[in-house]
Amino acid sequence: MKRSIGARTILYPTPVLVVGTYDKSGKPNLMTAAWGGICCSDPPCVAVSMRKATYTHGNIVARKAFTVSVLSEKQAPLADYYGITTGRKEDKFSRSSVSAVQSEVVDAPYADEFPLVLECKLIHIVEIGLHTEFIGEIVDVKADPQILASNGLPDAEKLRPFSYAPGEQKYYGTGKCLGSAFSIGKTI
Amino acid sequence: MKRSIGARTILYPTPVLVVGTYDKSGKPNLMTAAWGGICCSDPPCVAVSMRKATYTHGNIVARKAFTVSVLSEKQAPLADYYGITTGRKEDKFSRSSVSAVQSEVVDAPYADEFPLVLECKLIHIVEIGLHTEFIGEIVDVKADPQILASNGLPDAEKLRPFSYAPGEQKYYGTGKCLGSAFSIGKTI
Repeated sequence: MKRSIGARTILYPTPVLVVGTYDKSGKPNLMTAAWGGICCSDPPCVAVSMRKATYTHGNIVARKAFTVSVLSEKQAPLADYYGITTGRKEDKFSRSSVSAVQSEVVDAPYADEFPLVLECKLIHIVEIGLHTEFIGEIVDVKADPQILASNGLPDAEKLRPFSYAPGEQKYYGTGKCLGSAFSIGKTI
Repeated sequence: MKRSIGARTILYPTPVLVVGTYDKSGKPNLMTAAWGGICCSDPPCVAVSMRKATYTHGNIVARKAFTVSVLSEKQAPLADYYGITTGRKEDKFSRSSVSAVQSEVVDAPYADEFPLVLECKLIHIVEIGLHTEFIGEIVDVKADPQILASNGLPDAEKLRPFSYAPGEQKYYGTGKCLGSAFSIGKTI
């Protein structure tokens, strides 16, 4: 018998998305968002949701662009840091000792130390409630060569991404490979 | 030096969301979606994106409700199966030997065998491109008691969720705990 646990934002895995933006004056900022994910294949798009109170919300509205970076397990403290401080009060790039790189394709920054970066231009704003959902078209993806497999695409075992577990508010790393998609279900 | 890998829907972790719907005649169906995630805290909402060609797309438009279930590692073949077949041609509940349960709060089904279920009523439809994004308000969450921690919320080590790795098109299980959110970043 299932138990009702109430109307809650409990989903697994929840991503840990590091969103890079410039403010009106051109100061680069980073913020960690857990609400988001890919939302369209063509055009390729990713959604990130922000509270209106955040510095990043205003930056995305002003510059109409953002980056979304995926960090490796060993960088989990960095991602956590970007989520617990505000760019209004400190320079998060400097404080976390990472180097701001200006995207060549969109008006947004990312950190050179981040292994995987989606460069996005804003194409939709959806006002939902406490959060505004920003849908960005992925104009290009930049990756460190060390995380790429021989097919030229990221390899999870090299990237070692991690996720957020909302029930216990902890981060979990990459587990064991369970098999190939579009394949292991054929036994059913 | 980062490498450009093109405009691609590459994000980690990508979730494996099993979406439950009824069709116009009341037949229950399940479909696996990788594009989606939580998109608002208040009201609590989850987004799932579907191609218009899918059976589930028409079902959500018709019934204005859906469920989103998270499966455990050992159920990865089931989730894969729901993604490689269409409910137009077969009864996926029957074929996969799971029992359809009608949600008591929304007009959508789920399987009794799924450990964590979000019950959603449709509140927004966003036409993006190939995919339509459906935003559902989470009306309630149902969980098997075995996956709950002492705080009454899901415990990732008991649920053992898994994710989809889009680069290599493989599923990966839950890895080791990396620390507490809103905490490990304080060392920066």
